Amino acid sequence: MPSSVEPFEKAASAIDNLASRSILPAGVTRVCPAGRSDESYWPRGFTLSGINAGIKPQRKDLMLMLSDGPASTAAVFTTNLCCAAPVEISKRHLVASAGRMRAVICNSGNANAATGARGLDDASRMAAATAAAFGVSAEEVLVASTGVIGQLLPGERISAAMPALKHASGSQQWSDAAEAIMTTDTFPKHFAVDVALSGGTARIAGIAKGSGMIQPNMATMLAFLCTDASIDPDLLQELLSAANAVSFNAITVDGDTSTNDTAAIMASGLGPAVVDGSDDSRLFGEALRSVMTMLAQLIVVDGEGATKFVEIRIEGARNCDEAQKAAMTVANSPLVKTAIHGEDANWGRIIAAVGRSGASFNQEELAVWFDTLPILKPGFDAGFSEEEAKRVISKDAYTITVSLGKGPGLAVVWTCDLSKRYIEINGSYRS
Amino acid sequence: MPSSVEPFEKAASAIDNLASRSILPAGVTRVCPAGRSDESYWPRGFTLSGINAGIKPQRKDLMLMLSDGPASTAAVFTTNLCCAAPVEISKRHLVASAGRMRAVICNSGNANAATGARGLDDASRMAAATAAAFGVSAEEVLVASTGVIGQLLPGERISAAMPALKHASGSQQWSDAAEAIMTTDTFPKHFAVDVALSGGTARIAGIAKGSGMIQPNMATMLAFLCTDASIDPDLLQELLSAANAVSFNAITVDGDTSTNDTAAIMASGLGPAVVDGSDDSRLFGEALRSVMTMLAQLIVVDGEGATKFVEIRIEGARNCDEAQKAAMTVANSPLVKTAIHGEDANWGRIIAAVGRSGASFNQEELAVWFDTLPILKPGFDAGFSEEEAKRVISKDAYTITVSLGKGPGLAVVWTCDLSKRYIEINGSYRS
Repeated sequence: MPSSVEPFEKAASAIDNLASRSILPAGVTRVCPAGRSDESYWPRGFTLSGINAGIKPQRKDLMLMLSDGPASTAAVFTTNLCCAAPVEISKRHLVASAGRMRAVICNSGNANAATGARGLDDASRMAAATAAAFGVSAEEVLVASTGVIGQLLPGERISAAMPALKHASGSQQWSDAAEAIMTTDTFPKHFAVDVALSGGTARIAGIAKGSGMIQPNMATMLAFLCTDASIDPDLLQELLSAANAVSFNAITVDGDTSTNDTAAIMASGLGPAVVDGSDDSRLFGEALRSVMTMLAQLIVVDGEGATKFVEIRIEGARNCDEAQKAAMTVANSPLVKTAIHGEDANWGRIIAAVGRSGASFNQEELAVWFDTLPILKPGFDAGFSEEEAKRVISKDAYTITVSLGKGPGLAVVWTCDLSKRYIEINGSYRS
Repeated sequence: MPSSVEPFEKAASAIDNLASRSILPAGVTRVCPAGRSDESYWPRGFTLSGINAGIKPQRKDLMLMLSDGPASTAAVFTTNLCCAAPVEISKRHLVASAGRMRAVICNSGNANAATGARGLDDASRMAAATAAAFGVSAEEVLVASTGVIGQLLPGERISAAMPALKHASGSQQWSDAAEAIMTTDTFPKHFAVDVALSGGTARIAGIAKGSGMIQPNMATMLAFLCTDASIDPDLLQELLSAANAVSFNAITVDGDTSTNDTAAIMASGLGPAVVDGSDDSRLFGEALRSVMTMLAQLIVVDGEGATKFVEIRIEGARNCDEAQKAAMTVANSPLVKTAIHGEDANWGRIIAAVGRSGASFNQEELAVWFDTLPILKPGFDAGFSEEEAKRVISKDAYTITVSLGKGPGLAVVWTCDLSKRYIEINGSYRS
């Protein structure tokens, strides 16, 4: 296997940079320092594993997240009509188990999407093989896949790898697990926090992968989270969905919604209780959001070919829906993304994107900032200093704010630039 | 001035290639051979001119299309809320003149967009200077601009250039006119046809420019057409809008709708009459559509960084709206466009784009063709030969057809690939 030192350093530096930009919720008492993998950071009651099962040459491609006992489980899935076989099977299992599951099994290198009835069988068999190997029932297993669309899953390799997967599992194998779900990602993505609740400290941790075909609609490509809090599946689903709307659903790399998007969380119940309507529920929800936001932002930082991380902030929209539309239109505009790449203070492209987004406003009232530097003031006053603008946009990460002057609607999304490297990666990904 | 031989050869070869793919309407008896500029191809009653007015260094940047007498005039404009000053002024003039206009004046190098009240004054002054120089009234002048957003128009240079514009004008200056409205276009775009009507032969001709910020919504970047048919403004508007929906509104380069989109047509009335509800009206409408389609397709061929011209055809959608949504989603997907660029038969990305488009279907019924080669048959049968697929997708131009198996809805749009050159062009366009 190739050395993984460099990717881990990239991950560590990305987490440090993002953490310095964000304000953590009040309840969070500790975050996992970049690169740390010792047991004290991870929720109690889970073992993880990441190995090579021969789906990809050499690189890790099979991940297991196993709960010691039945765990409250919640998930959100892609809204793409061409959803992958594992998405359909996981939805069925989530219902059949009434949200009490034991394991997540996930392969990379093959999406098991657009594979028809045979694909559904393969996904079911993948759950069954996991169930048999780890002594749980098939309905307690959530299945996920990521990789090339339209090729049959080498299911026998996955079944054959179960002993190795079991042998490699442990409570500290978060990096291995994060590595095993990567496709064109350049570093593994995992993050964890402690949150102080009335009954003690709960831990929340997660792994994610992204890179291309990223504009999640209900969930990102793949994210698997766990916590040792004690929480019922309905409340867990509610908190996951709410956090998802402002984390994974607020990022875009290329505007393409994947066929395989899945975000799931399992709660082992070994830690403090989280009860609906309590202060703890709010604190836990905010801490969960902070973990999911970090993972979402790491996906953008590591977007295919990305060299810049940019927060797009729309204020003063008529309502939040219009703000979200405007933010996503700016975040996906190839002209805005190439200007970000070229470090060009081309505010005209930003307001042109807002103008076609469907959000309502009077163009004379538009205002634009790069971080805190005013670029465009109402009445089309663009008397900014090119030199000061350059100082902001030559940074690796900054915020573009647009005010529409129309109402209370606000939205924040995260995007990256569009570079030649994206074209290189995607001109030949399948072959 | 740099030699313009090469761009004209590119234009000629693009027209020949496109013409070989399209079926001309029955009424069309003659098309303008590529590169020809002699008088017999152009509608009677118009003079054109294209010169350098000093807005851009060295290259032509000011265009005039002048009718000998009041001409029936119709136009469609951008739906971008940040519409440019000349769009607002042109809308006013079209109403004030009751659709009887004399001239179109258009500059490149500066969009006069996001320029506020001063921009509106500049656009009005541009019309007034044209009116004074050519002996018409300001309300009879349609104004257009294209280029960088957010910079004030050098209006005095435009006024000062009127004598030179007059001196250079003639009935055969179509290439000059087409050249003067170019921005990052690599060749001038003009086309003309003869259409046989009951009262004689009418000519329809037009010029257009495109290149980037191209997903017109009501019209393309800029297209100016004229005809010598005798037709009232209301019918002309109706035929223009109908043809626009399936020509300029059916193309995309990058999904960005411009602030300046304008398509206008003037009819001198020196030729045969076209009366509402007649056979002639249908023949004229179809011929107009064929001219607008050729100009629209030339814009795609010359899209920023484009190396491929691809027709996206969606069949079997529930209705035409859903077909259009699906077609535009495929045509704008960065993953599909990079696969087209890389000549990769990645049908998974095509159906993933259809799946997120909002069109309804059952994924088991999807079918995909590259030209006439079946790539995916219903039930996810993708047993095509990679070699045969490569033979299609290595061509400069081909058709991707997707059948949704749901209903009668059909849509056709034209798009190009996404290449590194697009990034180069747009990373530094403004500076």
